Amino acid sequence: MTPPARTTNPRQDTSHDAPTDLLAAEGQLAHVDLGRFRTEAGAFIPGAQLAYQRWGKFRGDPAGKNNVLLVEHALTGDSNAADWWGGLVGPGKALDTNEWCVICFNALGGCSGSTGPSSPHPDDGRAWGSRFPAVNIRDHAAAERSALEELGIHHVHAVIGGSMGGARALEWTLLYPDFVTAACVIAVSARASGWQIGIQSAQISSVTNDPAWHDGDYYASGDVPLAGLAAARRLAHLTYRGELEIDERFGARAQQGENPLGPHRDPQQRFAVNSYLEHQGAKLAQRFDAGSYVTLTEALNRHDIGRGRGGLNKALAASRVPTMVVGVDTDILYPYHQQEHLSRNVGELLAMAKVVSPVGHDAFLTEDRQMDRILRNFLSLSEQTPSATERAVTGGIYAI
Amino acid sequence: MTPPARTTNPRQDTSHDAPTDLLAAEGQLAHVDLGRFRTEAGAFIPGAQLAYQRWGKFRGDPAGKNNVLLVEHALTGDSNAADWWGGLVGPGKALDTNEWCVICFNALGGCSGSTGPSSPHPDDGRAWGSRFPAVNIRDHAAAERSALEELGIHHVHAVIGGSMGGARALEWTLLYPDFVTAACVIAVSARASGWQIGIQSAQISSVTNDPAWHDGDYYASGDVPLAGLAAARRLAHLTYRGELEIDERFGARAQQGENPLGPHRDPQQRFAVNSYLEHQGAKLAQRFDAGSYVTLTEALNRHDIGRGRGGLNKALAASRVPTMVVGVDTDILYPYHQQEHLSRNVGELLAMAKVVSPVGHDAFLTEDRQMDRILRNFLSLSEQTPSATERAVTGGIYAI
Repeated sequence: MTPPARTTNPRQDTSHDAPTDLLAAEGQLAHVDLGRFRTEAGAFIPGAQLAYQRWGKFRGDPAGKNNVLLVEHALTGDSNAADWWGGLVGPGKALDTNEWCVICFNALGGCSGSTGPSSPHPDDGRAWGSRFPAVNIRDHAAAERSALEELGIHHVHAVIGGSMGGARALEWTLLYPDFVTAACVIAVSARASGWQIGIQSAQISSVTNDPAWHDGDYYASGDVPLAGLAAARRLAHLTYRGELEIDERFGARAQQGENPLGPHRDPQQRFAVNSYLEHQGAKLAQRFDAGSYVTLTEALNRHDIGRGRGGLNKALAASRVPTMVVGVDTDILYPYHQQEHLSRNVGELLAMAKVVSPVGHDAFLTEDRQMDRILRNFLSLSEQTPSATERAVTGGIYAI
Repeated sequence: MTPPARTTNPRQDTSHDAPTDLLAAEGQLAHVDLGRFRTEAGAFIPGAQLAYQRWGKFRGDPAGKNNVLLVEHALTGDSNAADWWGGLVGPGKALDTNEWCVICFNALGGCSGSTGPSSPHPDDGRAWGSRFPAVNIRDHAAAERSALEELGIHHVHAVIGGSMGGARALEWTLLYPDFVTAACVIAVSARASGWQIGIQSAQISSVTNDPAWHDGDYYASGDVPLAGLAAARRLAHLTYRGELEIDERFGARAQQGENPLGPHRDPQQRFAVNSYLEHQGAKLAQRFDAGSYVTLTEALNRHDIGRGRGGLNKALAASRVPTMVVGVDTDILYPYHQQEHLSRNVGELLAMAKVVSPVGHDAFLTEDRQMDRILRNFLSLSEQTPSATERAVTGGIYAI
């Protein structure tokens, strides 16, 4: 068969009833109630909510071909994709909100409007704290699917994300292949590697060893584990940035006005790189909840698309959603060979792209020019591809 | 000119007076008094001592051609090279103690016999603690040179070391080119990179943020910052091992009998990799002093052969000592491009070798077969090379 005629392109099509009356106003933070959410591991989160934002008008069939792009944020991101991906989401940009309806949820367990450890527990109004269960990437995707259904959306054109957002995008393709036409999975792996679990667990320990953590119930204590969270972020940042880029920027230079080479070690006399890392740590500690940091980092530890599906490669091979895989050549956290592994094994590889940059993992957030080309290419390819649903109807035989 | 005739090979030559009466008995730990040691940064260590061990009979000229190989240990190593490099140091091994006289010092600031923070201060007999000054790699080399002079040795055939030992070997070639015939510099860089300073400083903070640290003066407190030191080591270990090797060994497996995927995060229910890292951390904390860990890690932060010498490349270009450079392809801590940089810029490159291994940085300690070939090759090349002293006499013109 031939691909769907371009005259049915939902981006121009206004013939369907669009659920825009249910959707948040352009760019405004809104919430969706999920009711009592059950995690994969069997815990319950009563009164769960997801926060989200939406840009661009919905067009098309809420249960079929439409113009929704589900964008997934990274560990400490939020629903404001037009901010953290400002070069790529907006009118005329790669994810063009004149054409596409971009929706971005704050992850379950986060602290930017979705229910997480810092949210009030419905039973007593006190913060969930240590009562908040472990969630994993599948729980994230399941919560998002429920939220979309609540919004009257039963199909999306594509799910797109990097890092933890890429993990969610990948789980989406395996959990709900009939819900998505295509996926773009950026700077992530099929499961957490041993090294990632090790370095991520070091960050968790850094928070939980802070005396102000109070076993996760610091919210009413008057203490805040800012020091532990800042230390975790300093460490994480060294995995987010390429060692070449950090060295080019800071090398072994002294911070201006300080002398790190004095006769005694003095933490006040710093190398420039340590001043930079301290700034990064303090900035995150001011804007992010320590409980959510632990919860979402733990979700990354548990990322494993092979679990319960016969292992990584069997799970990938079973994927029916056309998927583009993107990596960064200098990524320390998710080395490029992990994306090569995905590309070799995913059932329906749409394309593979490498971002070339000294920046490392964060390049998918900072190399706008390359990411612009990659995302435009992805959308173009995705429009030539029948959705998994359409293929299921026609017996899986199609031509591009 | 032709190389020195092989009949003068000091390994067979017994015509010189050897200072063996001053040297420690084979394999026995001994100490050398340095008196009042002054650091490059201007602090003083009165009553400084270095511990060392010696294997193989000294032969040759104590001030000229002889059979001494100075082996330099890594961060938490010690003078017992026949132990930590057991596959490479000994009778018939690459560093053959039937032929060569191998000498290995414990670094100044260490805790295996040399003066460090845990040593008694000569004024009051209490541990040096926070009074112990910062030392750098140049101080290490200077202390070792003084100690060799005390032992009646005024020239060595070669200095050989990996990681922090490689940094010392490199500084030896620049500080005392007339003292060494050749150098083998393994798995290190010309200076600490910004990334290295960042990750090493995270380790220092891990120790110094442990309440048991007592600002470095924990020795009489009854407390020991074991938790901080173990956490530092866990982190360090993730830079010592390749991510591929760690993933091959542990992946995302659960520790036997534990379930890290339960409904709530539970530090007692671990991934296997975390059990492994905890074991590594606890093992180091039991055998190593936290003060020495901080002192020696700080020495690595300060490693910069360009300081006061017109920058890295000018310093390297000025090197007159034939130097072999060795790296590991999967080294996260000292990436191979850093050894390529050394090899491109060192004044007198003897040879370059790459250890190919999934193990990462530690491969120079674990890949005995490859290191055996490399060290035998190094010694063979080094014997064909006139020492810097000899070249100085003949105006630098020589042929191999």
